[in-house]
Formats: sequence, C-alpha cells, structure tokens
Amino acid sequence: MDAVERSVTGDTGVRAVTRVIDLLELFDTAHPARSIKELVEGTGLPKTTVLRLCATLCARNVLTARTDGTFGLGPGMLRWVRLAGRMWTPSDEVAEVMRELSRDTGETVNLYVREGLSRIVVAQCESSATVRSVIPVGVPYPLWAGAAGKVLLQAAPELLPAVAAESPRGPEYEKELGAAVDAARERGYALVHGEREMGASGLAFPVTDAHARVVAALTVGGPTGRFTEDRVARYVEATRSAAAKIAALGLPGID
Amino acid sequence: MDAVERSVTGDTGVRAVTRVIDLLELFDTAHPARSIKELVEGTGLPKTTVLRLCATLCARNVLTARTDGTFGLGPGMLRWVRLAGRMWTPSDEVAEVMRELSRDTGETVNLYVREGLSRIVVAQCESSATVRSVIPVGVPYPLWAGAAGKVLLQAAPELLPAVAAESPRGPEYEKELGAAVDAARERGYALVHGEREMGASGLAFPVTDAHARVVAALTVGGPTGRFTEDRVARYVEATRSAAAKIAALGLPGID
Repeated sequence: MDAVERSVTGDTGVRAVTRVIDLLELFDTAHPARSIKELVEGTGLPKTTVLRLCATLCARNVLTARTDGTFGLGPGMLRWVRLAGRMWTPSDEVAEVMRELSRDTGETVNLYVREGLSRIVVAQCESSATVRSVIPVGVPYPLWAGAAGKVLLQAAPELLPAVAAESPRGPEYEKELGAAVDAARERGYALVHGEREMGASGLAFPVTDAHARVVAALTVGGPTGRFTEDRVARYVEATRSAAAKIAALGLPGID
Repeated sequence: MDAVERSVTGDTGVRAVTRVIDLLELFDTAHPARSIKELVEGTGLPKTTVLRLCATLCARNVLTARTDGTFGLGPGMLRWVRLAGRMWTPSDEVAEVMRELSRDTGETVNLYVREGLSRIVVAQCESSATVRSVIPVGVPYPLWAGAAGKVLLQAAPELLPAVAAESPRGPEYEKELGAAVDAARERGYALVHGEREMGASGLAFPVTDAHARVVAALTVGGPTGRFTEDRVARYVEATRSAAAKIAALGLPGID
C-alpha cells in the first residue's frame, strides 16, 4: 500500500490511532514516566514520529512534559478516570466481598470481563503473600488460556473458533477448548494449572446477571504449589459463595 | 495540503490523534454512552471515519460496543485510570482539607494545576447548595479568565503574551492581565467576579512547593450573590489556611 492509497483508504488514520494507544500503553504503574528514548524503543517508531505524537498529546493534556525531560500521563486523563472508573469499577460492597475472599484464601482475587477476544481485569485484590499472582488491571489477556476464559466463553460459544485460531495451537484447539468450556459449565467452575504460565494456577467462577447470563468471572490465582487438594476444596467453596454474593449485588458496566 | 503531501509530512498522523481525542472527549459523566449519530455530530467527522475510529478503539478496548448499539468507554481505559489517578489525585489528607473548606464555606472547592495555557481541575469537592459552581475534573479551561489563572500565572509570567492572545480581548489584554497577576501575588490571593461567566465568583490561593514555587491553585467558587463582603473575609481566611495545610502535606504529579 503506498502513501496515496493509504490516504484514500484512511489506513493512516487507523494506524495513527493504533500508534497512540501503543505509546500510551508504555505507561504503567512500573513506568509512570518515560523518556523519548524509551518511547522510541517501546513503540518501534522513528524519533520524529514519537516527538510529534508526544507534542500532540501534551497539547491535549493527555501527556505532560516533566521538568526532567521525561513524559507522564497528563491531568487531561482525569476527565476519563472518573467516568471509566464509575462504568467499570464495582461497588464498595463488591470490593469488600473480593477482599474477604482474598483474605480467606490468601490468594489474589480478580474480577474479569470479556471484551471481544480478550479477558480484562476490572477489579482486583492482591494477595499479601510474597509469591503471588500479579495481573495488571485494564490489560487485555487472551481467552484461550486461563480459568477465566473457560468461564467467560460460556456466554459466547460462537467465539470458540476465533479464540482457538489465536492460540499457539491454532484452529485445531477449538474442540479441546470447547470441551473445557462445557466441563466448566457442568462443574460450575474452571480450575487450571500452568496453562498460560508454568507454576501458575487459577480457579474461576461465573458471575451471572438477573437473566442468569455469565457477565464476569471471579478468580482466585496463585502458585500451583498452594493449590493442593484440600486447599482447592476450600477455595472452591469460598469463591462459589463470593461469586453468588457479587451476582446479588450486581455489577456496573454490564448492559 | 493534498493527500500525498499529508502522508509525506505525517500531518494525517497528528490529525488522527486529534480526532481520537475529540471523539473521546464526547464521553463525560453526563454522556457515558454515545450513539454513532451523536459521535458524528459531536466530532463533525464523516460517518465512515467515526465508524473506523470506533472499530479501532473497540479492538483496543478503549471503547466498548454496548448491546443497545451505543458506545462507552472500555475496560482498557482502566489501565490508565489507576495510574493517572495516582499521578494527579491528591492524598486522602489533602482531600479531607478540601472537604473541610467546602463545608466551612458552603461552596465548591477546586484544586487546579497549570498545563500549557490551560488550568485543569485535578481534585474537587462540590458544594451541597442548589446553586453551585460545577467545573468538570480533568477538562482544560483557559488561563486568561478566573481566579485560578491569576494565581497559576505567577509561576509562568513568560506565558502572559500567549495567554492574552488567546483571550477575547487579544494581545492588548496582556498588560491588564499581568497587572491582575501582580496584584494577586502582592495580596496573596485572587478574587474574581463574573469574569468568565456572569454571576460566578471565585477566590484562589496559591499552593506552593518546598521551593516556594506556585504549583497549584486552591479555589472556592460559587454564585456572586454569596460572595458578600463579610462572607468573602471568612472565605479568605479559611482558604488561606487550607492552602497552607495542602502545601505542607504536598501534592503528587508535581516535579
């Protein structure tokens, strides 16, 4: 595709949007400030492009230029903070149920929703153990791995072919993934060991809406070494009870 | 500039970024969900462009397609929500000082920072009165009007020509604006009636950092009818004290 064609089809527009999101995604809790060098390396874009993007984003207060020459998220972001928080963050009552579950199990508790072919943590209560599961809030993960995926796909079986196609095992994984989703539905929960990452285990229960549709997955995640038979039996009961409480309290952002 | 030239100079890239921000700015507390029609009208872009932008933003979870055909902010926003909140939102102690000031005065209390030629509210405590000042958090307002501008410009007198040039009175406003900034510095605060909006009054005190630099403005805003002489005297003392407390507590996002 040459420059003229791109302009006509508008591909540059989409590409520019993708670039901006790539660039903004380089800012996270571990990297609240980024140098131009880091942004160039992280995006793979030419320095001139990065400088132009940063200038535009600063002019709109989405980024801010810091006195040390680095960039950080700007105060203009705050206009979406409150709204996105309100749309997606569960109520204090739901957060309290998640805190209790994390305290009872000693593991990290996550609440996932499905967006397209991804699962995204919208609320979290981290384990206080040294070895713990750490998943960033708001970051998409694939549905083909992990306990949450098996639960969330119950509400979207039509996505199985596309989800399988995205997996390392390709389209042929559809049958096995579908069987795992069915098994989780029958059993009431999904339990997964070392599927996405060796040594990581996860347990997921569905959270349903008033029409009994699966709208979220409540998970308990931690090192496989702690997912022993007797502990898992305890995790299962605690998570089942917490998921029912959350379903009764209701979630935002679900329409 | 034609299509080819735009592609070569990269102008379409900047334009696309600006478009995305324009589109995202249409989502606010009053409008958490938007139809394609509203997005087309709000951005002034062709429907095909809006559809393409929405598809790209949905694919990246920045927007979400709702079952009723409208769009809302997506859960991918949450990755920046926590970080931007942490970078810009003051501590609970500062929030408590603002709450006290709002309770003492009965007015809306805002904490502004300067970004470029704008002032932006990063924290707020709304008055509980029926007639109250309502300024959205995270939205840029010009520095040439309002009490906060006179205070924030103390730290950036070099911007006076550019700020004046943006005002309805143009470059010739620089002298008067500069005098107002100087007066606020000498007096210790700025008091403004009906400058940006008839019937709206504001009082602003500087919040300084350890080097005595003005890093924020603490304001009390409300209807001019409540800014009587005796009440203002009370507002001034309460705000002066609160600004000193906030300076002692310190603010985030200030480097």
